[in-house]
Amino acid sequence: MSLLCPNAFLSPLAIDEAVTRALAEDLGRAGDVTSIATIPEGTRGSAVMKAREAGVIAGLAVAEAVFRKLDPSVEITGHLRDGAAVQAKTVLMSISGDARALLSAERTALNFVGHLSGIASATAEFVRLVAHTKARVCCTRKTTPGLRALQKYAVRCGGGFNHRFGLDDAILIKDNHIAVAGGVRAVLERAKAAAGHLVKIEIEVDTLEQLKTVLEVGLADAVLLDNMSPATMKQAVAVVAGRLVIEASGGITHESAAAIAESGVDYLSSGAITHSSANLDVGLDIEI
Amino acid sequence: MSLLCPNAFLSPLAIDEAVTRALAEDLGRAGDVTSIATIPEGTRGSAVMKAREAGVIAGLAVAEAVFRKLDPSVEITGHLRDGAAVQAKTVLMSISGDARALLSAERTALNFVGHLSGIASATAEFVRLVAHTKARVCCTRKTTPGLRALQKYAVRCGGGFNHRFGLDDAILIKDNHIAVAGGVRAVLERAKAAAGHLVKIEIEVDTLEQLKTVLEVGLADAVLLDNMSPATMKQAVAVVAGRLVIEASGGITHESAAAIAESGVDYLSSGAITHSSANLDVGLDIEI
Amino acid sequence: MSLLCPNAFLSPLAIDEAVTRALAEDLGRAGDVTSIATIPEGTRGSAVMKAREAGVIAGLAVAEAVFRKLDPSVEITGHLRDGAAVQAKTVLMSISGDARALLSAERTALNFVGHLSGIASATAEFVRLVAHTKARVCCTRKTTPGLRALQKYAVRCGGGFNHRFGLDDAILIKDNHIAVAGGVRAVLERAKAAAGHLVKIEIEVDTLEQLKTVLEVGLADAVLLDNMSPATMKQAVAVVAGRLVIEASGGITHESAAAIAESGVDYLSSGAITHSSANLDVGLDIEI
Amino acid sequence: MSLLCPNAFLSPLAIDEAVTRALAEDLGRAGDVTSIATIPEGTRGSAVMKAREAGVIAGLAVAEAVFRKLDPSVEITGHLRDGAAVQAKTVLMSISGDARALLSAERTALNFVGHLSGIASATAEFVRLVAHTKARVCCTRKTTPGLRALQKYAVRCGGGFNHRFGLDDAILIKDNHIAVAGGVRAVLERAKAAAGHLVKIEIEVDTLEQLKTVLEVGLADAVLLDNMSPATMKQAVAVVAGRLVIEASGGITHESAAAIAESGVDYLSSGAITHSSANLDVGLDIEI
Amino acid sequence: MSLLCPNAFLSPLAIDEAVTRALAEDLGRAGDVTSIATIPEGTRGSAVMKAREAGVIAGLAVAEAVFRKLDPSVEITGHLRDGAAVQAKTVLMSISGDARALLSAERTALNFVGHLSGIASATAEFVRLVAHTKARVCCTRKTTPGLRALQKYAVRCGGGFNHRFGLDDAILIKDNHIAVAGGVRAVLERAKAAAGHLVKIEIEVDTLEQLKTVLEVGLADAVLLDNMSPATMKQAVAVVAGRLVIEASGGITHESAAAIAESGVDYLSSGAITHSSANLDVGLDIEI
Amino acid sequence: MSLLCPNAFLSPLAIDEAVTRALAEDLGRAGDVTSIATIPEGTRGSAVMKAREAGVIAGLAVAEAVFRKLDPSVEITGHLRDGAAVQAKTVLMSISGDARALLSAERTALNFVGHLSGIASATAEFVRLVAHTKARVCCTRKTTPGLRALQKYAVRCGGGFNHRFGLDDAILIKDNHIAVAGGVRAVLERAKAAAGHLVKIEIEVDTLEQLKTVLEVGLADAVLLDNMSPATMKQAVAVVAGRLVIEASGGITHESAAAIAESGVDYLSSGAITHSSANLDVGLDIEI
Repeated sequence: MSLLCPNAFLSPLAIDEAVTRALAEDLGRAGDVTSIATIPEGTRGSAVMKAREAGVIAGLAVAEAVFRKLDPSVEITGHLRDGAAVQAKTVLMSISGDARALLSAERTALNFVGHLSGIASATAEFVRLVAHTKARVCCTRKTTPGLRALQKYAVRCGGGFNHRFGLDDAILIKDNHIAVAGGVRAVLERAKAAAGHLVKIEIEVDTLEQLKTVLEVGLADAVLLDNMSPATMKQAVAVVAGRLVIEASGGITHESAAAIAESGVDYLSSGAITHSSANLDVGLDIEI
Repeated sequence: MSLLCPNAFLSPLAIDEAVTRALAEDLGRAGDVTSIATIPEGTRGSAVMKAREAGVIAGLAVAEAVFRKLDPSVEITGHLRDGAAVQAKTVLMSISGDARALLSAERTALNFVGHLSGIASATAEFVRLVAHTKARVCCTRKTTPGLRALQKYAVRCGGGFNHRFGLDDAILIKDNHIAVAGGVRAVLERAKAAAGHLVKIEIEVDTLEQLKTVLEVGLADAVLLDNMSPATMKQAVAVVAGRLVIEASGGITHESAAAIAESGVDYLSSGAITHSSANLDVGLDIEI
Repeated sequence: MSLLCPNAFLSPLAIDEAVTRALAEDLGRAGDVTSIATIPEGTRGSAVMKAREAGVIAGLAVAEAVFRKLDPSVEITGHLRDGAAVQAKTVLMSISGDARALLSAERTALNFVGHLSGIASATAEFVRLVAHTKARVCCTRKTTPGLRALQKYAVRCGGGFNHRFGLDDAILIKDNHIAVAGGVRAVLERAKAAAGHLVKIEIEVDTLEQLKTVLEVGLADAVLLDNMSPATMKQAVAVVAGRLVIEASGGITHESAAAIAESGVDYLSSGAITHSSANLDVGLDIEI
Repeated sequence: MSLLCPNAFLSPLAIDEAVTRALAEDLGRAGDVTSIATIPEGTRGSAVMKAREAGVIAGLAVAEAVFRKLDPSVEITGHLRDGAAVQAKTVLMSISGDARALLSAERTALNFVGHLSGIASATAEFVRLVAHTKARVCCTRKTTPGLRALQKYAVRCGGGFNHRFGLDDAILIKDNHIAVAGGVRAVLERAKAAAGHLVKIEIEVDTLEQLKTVLEVGLADAVLLDNMSPATMKQAVAVVAGRLVIEASGGITHESAAAIAESGVDYLSSGAITHSSANLDVGLDIEI
Repeated sequence: MSLLCPNAFLSPLAIDEAVTRALAEDLGRAGDVTSIATIPEGTRGSAVMKAREAGVIAGLAVAEAVFRKLDPSVEITGHLRDGAAVQAKTVLMSISGDARALLSAERTALNFVGHLSGIASATAEFVRLVAHTKARVCCTRKTTPGLRALQKYAVRCGGGFNHRFGLDDAILIKDNHIAVAGGVRAVLERAKAAAGHLVKIEIEVDTLEQLKTVLEVGLADAVLLDNMSPATMKQAVAVVAGRLVIEASGGITHESAAAIAESGVDYLSSGAITHSSANLDVGLDIEI
Repeated sequence: MSLLCPNAFLSPLAIDEAVTRALAEDLGRAGDVTSIATIPEGTRGSAVMKAREAGVIAGLAVAEAVFRKLDPSVEITGHLRDGAAVQAKTVLMSISGDARALLSAERTALNFVGHLSGIASATAEFVRLVAHTKARVCCTRKTTPGLRALQKYAVRCGGGFNHRFGLDDAILIKDNHIAVAGGVRAVLERAKAAAGHLVKIEIEVDTLEQLKTVLEVGLADAVLLDNMSPATMKQAVAVVAGRLVIEASGGITHESAAAIAESGVDYLSSGAITHSSANLDVGLDIEI
């Protein structure tokens, strides 16, 4: 059984690439000198990975690839899958194989699961806070360099939605674009003229005035309300009246999330869930 | 002038590799479709990067490489260097060049500076908390996969010290190694027999009993006290009497750091500074 | 002056990657043994690249990178830019530098310009054939493996528009997806439930019946009419009445293009422009 | 059974490299969002790949690697091998495995088979046109950048022969080399002096005069007749009298091929077969 | 059974990387044209690898990976493992599989085993020469570019010890560092202030005077005696009196090794064992 | 002025690739910790590279790239070029730039120059020993894995010639190919039937009998005499009578080279010059 979250987006090539890079980084040139020096070759061992605090899990499929890379015949049992919400002390997966490989893979596997589960859990918390509304939680491009695909996968594991994966897969017009192009109408016309029919156009607005112009021009698919108060957002929702998808953005916190969501916006986007989540505490109990 | 912290360790090849990977991740196949569609080619612009909160800066040299990669003739002025402690609103660097390149590079540059400055700042806070003692703060191998070299550089920017960079550059004997090898004496003898003269040997102990055996055997360079109370650590320091470097490890927090440092240990190691630091808030004000 | 087409989409990292790979492929291990054996080192030379037949040019910016890779101090003058329509014998660019480097780079540079200009020219021909209508010409994912980014750039140089760059940047629902999900309504609901707000949804239909269901469900942004006759397409256009973007697809030829466009569809997509265009004939006249 | 053409040249490492790059290009960061959103994980499916027009097949071994990369346990039956000549509607291979993987791999697999079969078929057509003579058909270095090894493999699948794979594996002296070196004799002496004994030397000539000098000098292995008429070629063949291998080159078409071959030359080389062949139409019928 | 030397240090990722690069280098674009042209596809063969002279073997595990890369179902029996001392004509491993793959892999496999066994044997000879003393033999950073990890592994196979793997895993202070920093005391204080607790510090000295200063300062872990006579080394050993690890370095030969070792130093380091060892003669007897 | 040997074969892309890999290998993650810790940032220095023994130099162009990689503004003066024969103490190149960069680059630069000059010098010695004959000295595929292109370049620097660069650029038929194909005639016919006109065919023979068959069949370009005595080779030369290029191979030593060359063969090939040459002793005198 795959340990991947069944409905989260991730290129299947991304895992192998991330795992190879991470192991190369940890093993360096000489490999795990401690285990080579102290563990007799051929020794067998087993391990269980456990959550040490409650949260939502992401990265088990990556951890599996880490262990398998160092011991192709390792036996792995996943007790649950990415996307599962767990309590502290829940056993996540069991691993049995070459003892040196287990010890060499341990830290890299835990680094992935801890980091990605931290993101999934932070996402899930925001999802919980707005669950009484129709608002969805989504990520941004404020990710940790080199880990975007995996982090966006973790956001989905936590029940969130994905914003753009990069500068190339949607148009998001910000203040500088508007200023240089000569205003909201001009910039939207330029964007629409250049974009193919499978590229969405979103535009950032700071005021209700700007929002009204966007609606008049009529070429955008979505609008990003930047740092507005919940009250202003509520007005914005009324003005839009369902004609655009509305994303609220800018310093959304646990405290402010519910109020923002209750304004009627469609999405709350948070950079913090990817760039500032603490690791979820997971550990490996090894028996050799 | 180089923007690198002058006495932090980093391979000069690591920056280009990290920057290329991060930009490839963000630009994808089509590049910055928004800027291509809305900003006339050849438009010039300038920008200032500012800290939006107080902290210790790391990553300016990386940000410089990001901008230069997309506009080789960009002009950059660093107003300070990695390792500087700043207040909110401090201008970090000024950038002037092709407007499309500025906008395309913005997020990646900020992602690096925000992430690495977060680590430097978290490190600096621990350093401050133990500044009245001789204890040094150091990192661990609990890093974000793929970013270890840069994260360890950020720890140095924040005044910390580096632990192992990987499994290959020092021996760190943990409980499993001890158990399989048949005890503290046996494991240390094995390690010493295999290690060359430029490999340090550290061993993790849970009890004062184990610590005494380590001292009797006499082959270790350092000892890691795992999750001991400050009181027990104080006893350990007395037992060691300067014969070993002592590292305290295990869930060290802002609350417990001072008491632990006051026990007389040489190092406090923290995984949290690399795996769980929130980004420092930095932004780019662009004028086109 | 950049030789890139100013409003065509391409990651700036793509050129260097493609050029390095192509030169490595041609130079192998020993390099250009003929030129090393017969041209004295240090000999200087100059060259002009000319179109040998009429067409639309794409790839000059890539050719420039090829020459520069083998002679960093080469002097290059672009007489026009990617996207220009030219007659036979038009001079495209002039190059002056190390003679060995010119000769070693010649074939790789021409292979890029000939291939990409062939695509730009084929696109431009379709654009011309439908110019009296509002229909736009666009590409598909039927590209030559490893060259997608450059080929899609060439389509833009020829006046066309870009469809998806890959499986990850938009949802395109085909017959198998519909069948497995249990019909048009079910598949659209699943897609909408999973997709973030910056992902467009297009669905392929074979019949007007299916089309009507798509309109009823109301979750799609675009519809692909697969292999319909112009007459049926006209009916489809009437049925849609502006509520969806309409793409006509399936074996569109020079003969059928106008009639299809006149049906009122928004896009004609063609795999042939990327996978089956003949090279445009370009050559290099070298003087040493 | 390997699906590779048994006597065509190709490094076994080339397939994996080309497949990985092509899938990375198509799957991007998020992977096949349509299939993840609409096909339940674990769904099984099967497919048959069919030729939709007559031709010579190349690329089945590559397609197999594409499917296997996304589903390592896929079951594949090849009904014929690369190099087979087929009629329209011939079943080429059957694939059975994970439905999501099938759908994700479909386009990349077809892009390879369509492209390479197009080249094999174009080659085979030239081979047929000259089959009544001793002339062999061969390729050139006018290939699509990044695909040379696979394209040259396809030429062999179509019954053709391979010219140089790059600038490094044989010496081909052209007009510029002759001019700079100071004439035919001088250039051949330089080439022979530098080349080891496993490097062939070919020289391009425009006139019978030049050809006679080449024969007098006596250091070449082969001569390339550039853009000569069949009548002049016939004279050239008589002059050479078996002392050199003769390659006819320059704008050889379906119309001119037979006459050129009948002149008695040994090889007809064509850039068009690699740089300007249309794809062969192949499709995948999927059942899920 | 793994063919790796059980207690030699090597990252498990290093083998695949080295093997892929070496095969790519040998197979080029077209692969093994001789075997493709002359050996019918599907032919089976077997082979035995034999030492043709006495020595210590290293590289069998690499050779295994070479054969497996070209024929994943090859059957391999190792008759001994890396690190074994053998006489001429000893059978090292037996291989059975696809005949083309065997022939294509032969030279690359032998190049690895011959090169690494040459290093292991040269190391073992030095080890033998000093076996009556406590001195250990170790390598340096004077390695063949691109092969350091494998060469250092071979040194361990031959009974030697590893010095630094690179500039990053230990501090080795040389004359220039001393001069710039302002003398032995200053340089050691700087080094100690910057280095973490898992980085050893070694310092090179030319005179007993320098050595005494090093001892006075007391911050070094090891000292490198550069080009001293055995007599001076003996004095150095007496001066040090066990307070530092002592490495003797500089032009150590078969003739001088015993005398140097008898001086009481801990390590003899030799660049020649990695940069100037002749290959051990190994061959492959193939039966097809 | 380029420091490359002007008539030696090497892809210009090979140097950057080799240098990047070698520096990455040496600098690891943390870089040159010793120099960072002890040399103040911004310190300037200069150095001269000297030969410490007589020989033929190769690798200066590579060394230049090493220094430039770590200090793009380094100033380098080459006092001679690759291919020069020098006495001990000859100054090869002068370098002036950032002191940390000089120290970090030193060992990698010397490793390249020492290794490649060792090969060039060994080649030159064989060239000298046979200078009174027409015989040329050439290399084989018995190279150090990963360094073939550079090693073959060094052979040319030493006055030698290059054999095949890989399995793909010429046909060399050995005993196994002959046996499987069913004898000399059959194997040559197969080879000729498959090979294009720019691929040379060489065949290895053990006896004069085999040689006569090769001549009768008449399809080979060259013959390799495997391990024959000089007397037998002389007979072989007489039998061939100029109809084939003759290569003598198999354990050729300084002692046997002249006699073999005097037999009248065209080439002596030696694996030892690439796989078993000792480094030439070169050093760097640094002033900071």
